[in-house]
Amino acid sequence: MTTLPLQPTPRTTVVRGRHRAVEERAALHALLAEALVAHVGVVVGDHAVVLPSAFGVDPDGPDEGGTLYLHGSVAARWLTAAVGATVCVTVTELDGLVAARSGFHHSMNYRSGVVIGVAREVLDPDERARALDLVVDQMVPGRSATLRPPTRKELAATAVLAVPLVEASLKVRSGDPVDDEADVEGGLWAGVVPVRRVLDAPLTAADAGGVPVPPDVRARAAGERPQ
Amino acid sequence: MTTLPLQPTPRTTVVRGRHRAVEERAALHALLAEALVAHVGVVVGDHAVVLPSAFGVDPDGPDEGGTLYLHGSVAARWLTAAVGATVCVTVTELDGLVAARSGFHHSMNYRSGVVIGVAREVLDPDERARALDLVVDQMVPGRSATLRPPTRKELAATAVLAVPLVEASLKVRSGDPVDDEADVEGGLWAGVVPVRRVLDAPLTAADAGGVPVPPDVRARAAGERPQ
Repeated sequence: MTTLPLQPTPRTTVVRGRHRAVEERAALHALLAEALVAHVGVVVGDHAVVLPSAFGVDPDGPDEGGTLYLHGSVAARWLTAAVGATVCVTVTELDGLVAARSGFHHSMNYRSGVVIGVAREVLDPDERARALDLVVDQMVPGRSATLRPPTRKELAATAVLAVPLVEASLKVRSGDPVDDEADVEGGLWAGVVPVRRVLDAPLTAADAGGVPVPPDVRARAAGERPQ
Repeated sequence: MTTLPLQPTPRTTVVRGRHRAVEERAALHALLAEALVAHVGVVVGDHAVVLPSAFGVDPDGPDEGGTLYLHGSVAARWLTAAVGATVCVTVTELDGLVAARSGFHHSMNYRSGVVIGVAREVLDPDERARALDLVVDQMVPGRSATLRPPTRKELAATAVLAVPLVEASLKVRSGDPVDDEADVEGGLWAGVVPVRRVLDAPLTAADAGGVPVPPDVRARAAGERPQ
């Protein structure tokens, strides 16, 4: 992992809530390691289209700052629009509802990483294979090593995009509401409702009855984001 | 709530995974009622910027199909760029990790709504007040009624945007992995790791010690998304 600072350009410099910008690449990578879904923004015509997507991360990937990988069907419109274009990949984890004493000071505790970069179509077979493994392992760590390699037909149907992680920002809110003095003196309650994601016990597919759950999946389902 | 069909235009017609497009407005509203964070896409310069945001929904709002409300600081760059422009608001709930017998068939169970529309700045004081209440109540239902009204200063610092819900699509995946016949016959395990969001017991703010947790917040924290 490189030690480049975050926010190297104006368009990834946090302006609003600047005190929430955590300028540490390691914190961005910790968020990316934990998250499961990214929201990818691409310009289509005169407007942005935002779609949820699985992703994978190679902190030591070939791009400056490391590489974030996306994949999709070669026929997907958003993917065609993204190749060679500047895209925005945003990953958000919600940590709590911040219930203040006024509507104005209501907020959320969260961590959100915004990556902006030119999406490169990955054509090298080795990098493609590695990228697809990383996307699977993001969901269930270690799982790609237990699966057969992709077929030629599967590879032909799949496009892989690489987005450099060099141009990125991270915004974090945590802790109590921040209320106006007068509202605090009013004696009202305020606080945080913690939010977390839980992965429950695996449900075996109908066509896999009797097959034991493999260790990688069992370990994943036991995992729970610490509060 | 209107009964307009979803996907009235080509740009919100689901092309990939068409079988996952649920053409029911009620299902979109159910997703919007449950979600806590939206990802808003705006074109800034030559690329999209995607930012997480709280939101509120008025199914009977003044816009065709109902109204989705966003708010932010009047100084926020994304908000300035969004006023009068076409924006994309995407709301995604992750329901499970779909662990197939091949990397290619790995997937996620999810519900994702994509709304595309011109963002109207809300200027009418009554609509602004109602929109801000809806954003608070999206986090903690009923809470806005327990709070003081916003001050003039707070209102002057806040911009409210309305996005019509008429042009929208909903994509849903649920259930087991869909594997190739040959992989199923190989006898490997496959299945789903269910994912859900949990709201834990409220944490009282340091400056509210001894004040009892109000019923709205208690009810919210007890709420859990059904599995």
